[in-house]
Amino acid sequence: MTFREDGAAALDWVAAYLDRVRELPVLSQVEPGELRAALPDSPPEDPEPFSALLRDLDEVLLPGLTHWQSPRFFAYFANTGSEPGILAELLATGLNQVGILWRTSPVLQELEEVTLDWLAQLLGLPEGLHGHIEDTASTATVAALAVARDTHPGRRAVVCSEQAHSVVDKATRLLELELRKAPVDDDFRLRPETLELDDVCAVVATVGTTGVAAVDPVSAIADRCDAARAWLHVDAAYAGSAAVCPEFRHHFAGWERADSIVVNPHKWLGTPMDCSAFWTRRPEEFRQTFSLVPEYLRSPDEAVNLSEVSIPLGRRFRALKLWAVLRCHGRSGLQEKIRGHVRLAALFEEWVRSDPEWEAVTPRHFSLVCFRRRGSDEENERLLERVNASGEVFISHTRVRDRYVLRLAIGNFRTTEDDVRLAWDVLRREAATA
Amino acid sequence: MTFREDGAAALDWVAAYLDRVRELPVLSQVEPGELRAALPDSPPEDPEPFSALLRDLDEVLLPGLTHWQSPRFFAYFANTGSEPGILAELLATGLNQVGILWRTSPVLQELEEVTLDWLAQLLGLPEGLHGHIEDTASTATVAALAVARDTHPGRRAVVCSEQAHSVVDKATRLLELELRKAPVDDDFRLRPETLELDDVCAVVATVGTTGVAAVDPVSAIADRCDAARAWLHVDAAYAGSAAVCPEFRHHFAGWERADSIVVNPHKWLGTPMDCSAFWTRRPEEFRQTFSLVPEYLRSPDEAVNLSEVSIPLGRRFRALKLWAVLRCHGRSGLQEKIRGHVRLAALFEEWVRSDPEWEAVTPRHFSLVCFRRRGSDEENERLLERVNASGEVFISHTRVRDRYVLRLAIGNFRTTEDDVRLAWDVLRREAATA
Repeated sequence: MTFREDGAAALDWVAAYLDRVRELPVLSQVEPGELRAALPDSPPEDPEPFSALLRDLDEVLLPGLTHWQSPRFFAYFANTGSEPGILAELLATGLNQVGILWRTSPVLQELEEVTLDWLAQLLGLPEGLHGHIEDTASTATVAALAVARDTHPGRRAVVCSEQAHSVVDKATRLLELELRKAPVDDDFRLRPETLELDDVCAVVATVGTTGVAAVDPVSAIADRCDAARAWLHVDAAYAGSAAVCPEFRHHFAGWERADSIVVNPHKWLGTPMDCSAFWTRRPEEFRQTFSLVPEYLRSPDEAVNLSEVSIPLGRRFRALKLWAVLRCHGRSGLQEKIRGHVRLAALFEEWVRSDPEWEAVTPRHFSLVCFRRRGSDEENERLLERVNASGEVFISHTRVRDRYVLRLAIGNFRTTEDDVRLAWDVLRREAATA
Repeated sequence: MTFREDGAAALDWVAAYLDRVRELPVLSQVEPGELRAALPDSPPEDPEPFSALLRDLDEVLLPGLTHWQSPRFFAYFANTGSEPGILAELLATGLNQVGILWRTSPVLQELEEVTLDWLAQLLGLPEGLHGHIEDTASTATVAALAVARDTHPGRRAVVCSEQAHSVVDKATRLLELELRKAPVDDDFRLRPETLELDDVCAVVATVGTTGVAAVDPVSAIADRCDAARAWLHVDAAYAGSAAVCPEFRHHFAGWERADSIVVNPHKWLGTPMDCSAFWTRRPEEFRQTFSLVPEYLRSPDEAVNLSEVSIPLGRRFRALKLWAVLRCHGRSGLQEKIRGHVRLAALFEEWVRSDPEWEAVTPRHFSLVCFRRRGSDEENERLLERVNASGEVFISHTRVRDRYVLRLAIGNFRTTEDDVRLAWDVLRREAATA
């Protein structure tokens, strides 16, 4: 293998992929097991050239990709691995840093802390939070709830709204905590006045729920948590990135009072998977729960190691890609992307609202539109399947007040008005020909 | 930003880095806070060119890197991000797949399963295990012990040897399980006859402990676990890769009976961080603990999603780099690397044993040599600091029977006999001039 030649071919492959990804079927159309059947049962005895891998990528793997990089991906929460993030990841992988102790990679640790400080500033968060990067909001939630549990002996309940993400269910199940789901108001917001917090160690408030992007009233919830001395964790995994624009910050009022906050730059901030930003006002409590330094890891340094405030002992050099994204887009560039997505979502919502055959189902705050075609759940479900089977765009669904609802989420940095218009055209075409 | 031009510069940077990394000071010589102080306090308002980031990488970040890619890195467990792995990670990042459900990336899921099947074959593991990739052995251990707990209601104790890795401590603390550390024999091996398993949900056996690479007698432990119906988790995070060579498989006898096994290709198998291979005979029990599919994630597919057998909901496309490593090195290439490292470790051990001023402290099974200079702990500790401060090589330490012991771990794919000879020369030079 010649690293430079193979590298040039790999780089060219990625560049060409990004150039053509808009035209590829967004949702993979393969059947389960199809790829497995197309791959050899056993590894090769002798080395193969890297070019063989590139060839298989085209010939075998490509049909099995769902194209998250496509500007026509509107399902779940759309995202982007933007160019600076991709190239920074190449650098980070070449460097292959392993963050265990500060000394095993001073750069990894200090750049992670600095970059999280930068991001906190961009989002309007206060000074003095300690930030680090987790792989996903799932892990961040486990960590936050474990610390909440440990700092509130005897209080084993966690409260969130019935719209909160399933990661809260998963984390409480893992930690054997009791999860209570609070009812929501007409706008799908947790109702602070209903909270009973006597035996509660933590409340999870969500800004931008996954189903409908609802916004819990964080300030009022923080008041209740203060009074009951419960931990407040704010899940802003999707919507948090919107706080780079001052005009959206009112949705987040009160999150600066949270004990822990998670925002996923790998969702709406152009950063490749995985990069979940996590801040806490209480790093010392995290050390209480997570710090364990065995003899073979003791070092003469004074620094606090990131492995002492989170579950994994070793970590990748994730900060480099986030640093690259923040620098190469800049505050103004990121604001432009977020504003553009919200504008496109508003436009799509307007098309839906102005067509009597369709209805918008929930209030829209960010770049997610929840809508449906007037008619039965089954009709909408079949519509979704036809739209996605076309490969032209990919959207997803949820249930709102027991009705099947379609979700169009805008979040890819290359999505244009034409792409959103295409989604609307495909939806109406498939609805008309059903 | 022009992706192709910036990409060529990034690729060139990595290629040049790998060419010169042998000559760089292995352990970073900066002080805590030095990098942070050299970086701007705030992110830029407007976009910066990617070239600015490359410039800072050279001028600001480079001194703060500890060079895990250096063939003269002998600390902890040395590792390598080998070339096929680096380039495959570039491809994976360009594709930016997000594994949540099978359909969100059929390739991610099926290649992960196939590649883990391949790796199981390479290691001589039996057919029928279900494999997936975790970020680190830390997370894998949490997952395994959570499932062990859930499948053994009322049994809240976990047993491991006193030489087991601190991730077991951390996992049991997170899960509020009681950890019992069993005493070891003269070869630092867990003594199966001492195990009392009545209220034990899981035993963790280690093949290749972190301190001294001791090998627990897995077969005999498996007998005890069978009799007591306790979960057997085998931690072969470091040494597991050695099983690609049949001549080392006797160390692993019995691991095929484990309920779960972890091996880290990011340690000794040329795969960039992070890639922790995890197998279980009991995928259904993992689903019981981890499966949660909310409405917005339901899909018409029949496939089992990897998010249903592990903690994170979303996962990176880690399999591509492991697939690339297995293909581009091949079985024969990987065997050659492992054999070469073990040979070099044996050579170093021979030098130590034949010099009356030095002593080898523990039996050597793999590529880790535990040794010390005859003299006090303090002398050895100062010696280690001087060796590492030279920047020429990087080694680490542990404590064995209350004595301070030096560790030389060979695991970098580019390490040659000259590099190991250098380590020996530097050690003797620093010892002589102290």
